Amino acid sequence: MGLLLNRKLRRVSAILLDVDGVLTDGGLFYDASGGEGKTFSAQDSYGIIRGIRAGLVFGIVTGRSSPIVLRRASELGICHVWQGVNDKGALLPEILALLRLEADEVLFMGDDMPDREIMLAAGVSVCPRNAAPEIKRIAKYVTRHTGGYGAVREVIDRVLRTRKLLRRDGSLTGSVAACGQAEYGSDSPEGGQ
Amino acid sequence: MGLLLNRKLRRVSAILLDVDGVLTDGGLFYDASGGEGKTFSAQDSYGIIRGIRAGLVFGIVTGRSSPIVLRRASELGICHVWQGVNDKGALLPEILALLRLEADEVLFMGDDMPDREIMLAAGVSVCPRNAAPEIKRIAKYVTRHTGGYGAVREVIDRVLRTRKLLRRDGSLTGSVAACGQAEYGSDSPEGGQ
Amino acid sequence: MGLLLNRKLRRVSAILLDVDGVLTDGGLFYDASGGEGKTFSAQDSYGIIRGIRAGLVFGIVTGRSSPIVLRRASELGICHVWQGVNDKGALLPEILALLRLEADEVLFMGDDMPDREIMLAAGVSVCPRNAAPEIKRIAKYVTRHTGGYGAVREVIDRVLRTRKLLRRDGSLTGSVAACGQAEYGSDSPEGGQ
Amino acid sequence: MGLLLNRKLRRVSAILLDVDGVLTDGGLFYDASGGEGKTFSAQDSYGIIRGIRAGLVFGIVTGRSSPIVLRRASELGICHVWQGVNDKGALLPEILALLRLEADEVLFMGDDMPDREIMLAAGVSVCPRNAAPEIKRIAKYVTRHTGGYGAVREVIDRVLRTRKLLRRDGSLTGSVAACGQAEYGSDSPEGGQ
Repeated sequence: MGLLLNRKLRRVSAILLDVDGVLTDGGLFYDASGGEGKTFSAQDSYGIIRGIRAGLVFGIVTGRSSPIVLRRASELGICHVWQGVNDKGALLPEILALLRLEADEVLFMGDDMPDREIMLAAGVSVCPRNAAPEIKRIAKYVTRHTGGYGAVREVIDRVLRTRKLLRRDGSLTGSVAACGQAEYGSDSPEGGQ
Repeated sequence: MGLLLNRKLRRVSAILLDVDGVLTDGGLFYDASGGEGKTFSAQDSYGIIRGIRAGLVFGIVTGRSSPIVLRRASELGICHVWQGVNDKGALLPEILALLRLEADEVLFMGDDMPDREIMLAAGVSVCPRNAAPEIKRIAKYVTRHTGGYGAVREVIDRVLRTRKLLRRDGSLTGSVAACGQAEYGSDSPEGGQ
Repeated sequence: MGLLLNRKLRRVSAILLDVDGVLTDGGLFYDASGGEGKTFSAQDSYGIIRGIRAGLVFGIVTGRSSPIVLRRASELGICHVWQGVNDKGALLPEILALLRLEADEVLFMGDDMPDREIMLAAGVSVCPRNAAPEIKRIAKYVTRHTGGYGAVREVIDRVLRTRKLLRRDGSLTGSVAACGQAEYGSDSPEGGQ
Repeated sequence: MGLLLNRKLRRVSAILLDVDGVLTDGGLFYDASGGEGKTFSAQDSYGIIRGIRAGLVFGIVTGRSSPIVLRRASELGICHVWQGVNDKGALLPEILALLRLEADEVLFMGDDMPDREIMLAAGVSVCPRNAAPEIKRIAKYVTRHTGGYGAVREVIDRVLRTRKLLRRDGSLTGSVAACGQAEYGSDSPEGGQ
């Protein structure tokens, strides 16, 4: 699986993320005056920012709708946010058209049934260790970290390392835009995480 | 126990839930201006919505009272909410009359002493792994997940699978209303979780 | 230790509790508008209420000051709350005088250095598993549960069981007031938790 | 490593701390009305206060900016707070000049890439167990506790014990100011944590 997964990861240039359970631990905080809250991970923040710097495209695709998600996305520099999506699978072609990408260039990370169809259609499907069993069964890659505690960072870094964009010391070797062609052409073997 | 439990689970058509420690991890958040907060699980959300779609009836029975619980229930489509209940055991006959169900068609999930009597009277009693010891001792089924981290989802899915309403891929085969008769009549053996 | 500890626990009629790290997991939540928050345990709630019903006296002794603590105490029926205490050890004699108790009738549960002197002076000293090492070293009883996740409940129930006030099914056999004399006189052996 | 680390720790008189992931567990709480929140550790509080009493200098160096950090710092008596720092490594010389210290008298504790350069330049670099892998690789000391759950306390106490400023019972033997000379001169062997 490692080699095949790595071959697939080498083609990834866009990472689409579910919110609850992926960017958070799935906890939905409700206060008594009608407010809500979500807890994100500072390590995911850095991972997303470094991923963007390396030229990866990020998008958020979620079934719920919350101003929290927009604020989080804008702070991180994520331009593409689809909220209140009922059928994520049906949205994928639109997303691909907008981003001018093929399905196998897109990685989707989700944790529950509403993510299933889009995960089956995306080039690489990832879920956190604590995803629903139906999803763990179909994911190509299950993270070691749990959602909200660095699972997204782990995936981004794995993509960057597999694409030889990230050195062991955490510095970037270049960016997708700058060396994308070479990257796509490269197929030297590389160990998994 | 597995076979007997499955036989009992096959009769369940309503799931009654305590709140603190079952739908949450038991954490009671207080802020300094008199507010409170609770953290629910996104995976439980999907489980309840899928359970309702499959025809299961859901109710919340809790000793405390909070607008949070009403909001959460209404978002999930749970119609029956009993808050501020001092004696849950004494309420059960009223609930059964209202829902036109027998006790053995009702599953109750609780985690502490106020849930004890209603758990003893319900057809199936369930508690999360981190319930009070007095309750773990009497529960027919102790979940693998902890409260607030998917314990409710685990129970609903177990009921749906035992009733053959849920496929391994997460899709529903039908609903309680549509095939309830057949379900009740069926007694083919089925493995536990 | 079990036998000696049980002998000491049989004399306990008042339980004094620190707040942060004992009634909570030690997390101090700050929001950006100057507010703060604490997360308590629903299982501790029931334990304290049952302990009061059994005749145990409860008090809170904390170095910090917060309206949250007063609200929590009043909801649980805890009458004695000392906040902003700089020297808990020096306060003990006053507490004993107020409650008309001897030191060996008082159990103190704390988790850090400000609790040290009062723990050394109290009849029984308890700390949660995740207490500071200086405190774990001197505590007579270290709980299996962590602070904010049932550690207080564990201690109360242990006192009640050792005093034969609590049955295995969670019901009370009587109260400190009603059968205190008999309790004190009893010295039948009894297993630990 | 233990002996060399201890030799380095004996020279430490200032502790500089990152915020997210070090003083907190890295969780970034967002509410729906634009607010944010952070959760600190009560055990870290006591550690910092005792460290200040022993004469250690504390500073906070963080890439983000939040009124929460200022409030937390002022409550603990931390005078030096640098927020919104883009290049922590480049700030170190300024910090050293301000504090009139050499690099080897400063310990920096961080958990992610923005902390890397300053960690490489500081006398001792520390990270919590759950730091990013790039950081764990370069840290001289990885704590047993996770960020937000006592990791900072563990480091402070280790410094104080190595400098013979802290007794096993948690009391202080003196302060950096009072016995700094002797401390620096002392080189009796001492075991690690």
